[in-house]
Amino acid sequence: MAENDSLAQLLASAVDAAKKAGEIIRKGFYETKHVEHKGQVDLVTETDKACEDLIFNHLKNLYPTHKFIGEETTAACGVTELTDDPTWIVDPLDGTTNFVHGFPFVCVSIGLTIGKIPTVGVVYNPIIDELFTGVRGGGAFLNGKPIKVSSQTELVKSLLATEAGIQRDNLTVDATTNRLNSLLFKVRSLRMSGSCALNLCGIACGRLDLFYELGFGGPWDVAGGAVIVTEAGGSVYDPSGKEFDITSQRVAASNPLLKDAFVGALLESE
Amino acid sequence: MAENDSLAQLLASAVDAAKKAGEIIRKGFYETKHVEHKGQVDLVTETDKACEDLIFNHLKNLYPTHKFIGEETTAACGVTELTDDPTWIVDPLDGTTNFVHGFPFVCVSIGLTIGKIPTVGVVYNPIIDELFTGVRGGGAFLNGKPIKVSSQTELVKSLLATEAGIQRDNLTVDATTNRLNSLLFKVRSLRMSGSCALNLCGIACGRLDLFYELGFGGPWDVAGGAVIVTEAGGSVYDPSGKEFDITSQRVAASNPLLKDAFVGALLESE
Repeated sequence: MAENDSLAQLLASAVDAAKKAGEIIRKGFYETKHVEHKGQVDLVTETDKACEDLIFNHLKNLYPTHKFIGEETTAACGVTELTDDPTWIVDPLDGTTNFVHGFPFVCVSIGLTIGKIPTVGVVYNPIIDELFTGVRGGGAFLNGKPIKVSSQTELVKSLLATEAGIQRDNLTVDATTNRLNSLLFKVRSLRMSGSCALNLCGIACGRLDLFYELGFGGPWDVAGGAVIVTEAGGSVYDPSGKEFDITSQRVAASNPLLKDAFVGALLESE
Repeated sequence: MAENDSLAQLLASAVDAAKKAGEIIRKGFYETKHVEHKGQVDLVTETDKACEDLIFNHLKNLYPTHKFIGEETTAACGVTELTDDPTWIVDPLDGTTNFVHGFPFVCVSIGLTIGKIPTVGVVYNPIIDELFTGVRGGGAFLNGKPIKVSSQTELVKSLLATEAGIQRDNLTVDATTNRLNSLLFKVRSLRMSGSCALNLCGIACGRLDLFYELGFGGPWDVAGGAVIVTEAGGSVYDPSGKEFDITSQRVAASNPLLKDAFVGALLESE
């Protein structure tokens, strides 16, 4: 990173890009109902691509030496290895199924890693106009107001979020529902919203107490949210309790008080 | 019903009551994070009770001969039998777990049955300011704009909503997750938002394609939403495919095109 790029500047650039992409998403969101199915698929692809181009162009213009990893680019060009260089990791449209159906949990997710550590995070839901931000060492915010994780200490009073995922082979679906069966005896209730990044932000602002997901798309689903959770006083970790690996497609998050009990419950649910 | 009470007047009265109750809910929603757990329980009870009193007083004043069934009153005084008389069926705060956690799916649900038929429905989410309304024969609306159910015809492309419920005995939890296991192979994805009334409204405006719930609280969870779904061109039925019984604590909803396939999938999931 250029020495002069303060974290505050980097955050402001990411917020600008997310808000502009959000306008494209909002427009498409209210159009999906008026196009036929084939048109819906095109609309998703177009929106995804237009948002990624916009965000990448915006940030590349400001930070020409930085690296970039995006869901769309990876889908087209294969996996880009995460290095120690400042790297923008972008999901231009998290919650594509929600987008198609008009279910209002969709967002732009932008994360910046430096030395592989998530350092700047922006997650913006343009439909209900919620902007989550976080900068390493600088706290986490929802629409500019400080947020923090819940103070819950008991699993049995905790609200758990997860997702059904997209794989539909017997092994995966059985593992998913067996896990839910085991966890339902231990927590208060279960939510599935369809957006990994927004689930992380739900942990950050205390709407949710526990979140895990296995087998999601890639680092773009978690790079932004991970900073926001950490800066809100939360913990992001591998569901096994090991250290979080942004490239592993496995994530769990909670406040630090619930971590041990949650990891225990997750291990028992395997 | 007094001969002079037009359905439009009845709807307007219910909207007034829902909006006023919504103000109380919105105020409490942003307070829950600042009170200790015991205080949270009190806040839920107080909000629930204050909203039900407000709605009942508002409507009893206008319609002194009508009957009233409310979640809070039933909890305190036992079940009131549903008769053919005009009967207001009210859930003053649907989504109490969401309310406590600050998860933005909470609502007021008001339904009016005449001859046991849901005739007027109002469901208001005061947090994201969405007002769903429907009057028998008069269409369904979201914030004043007409809504209709999705035009989806294939289960495999459908977004399914259900809830984990509140019972945690082995038999119920096993049945719940076995059902999910079977259904996950047949639908696109799964959402759990924590509000039965808002799930019905999700069907009405096409955000969701399929919804079922077994063992929810009572007729107050469905009385408002059922009219709204029907007036949006949807079908409300028993998960077995039989006729919907508002007192049965069992509900399924979709567009009419998906009904047979959904009932088939639900029966196969038992």
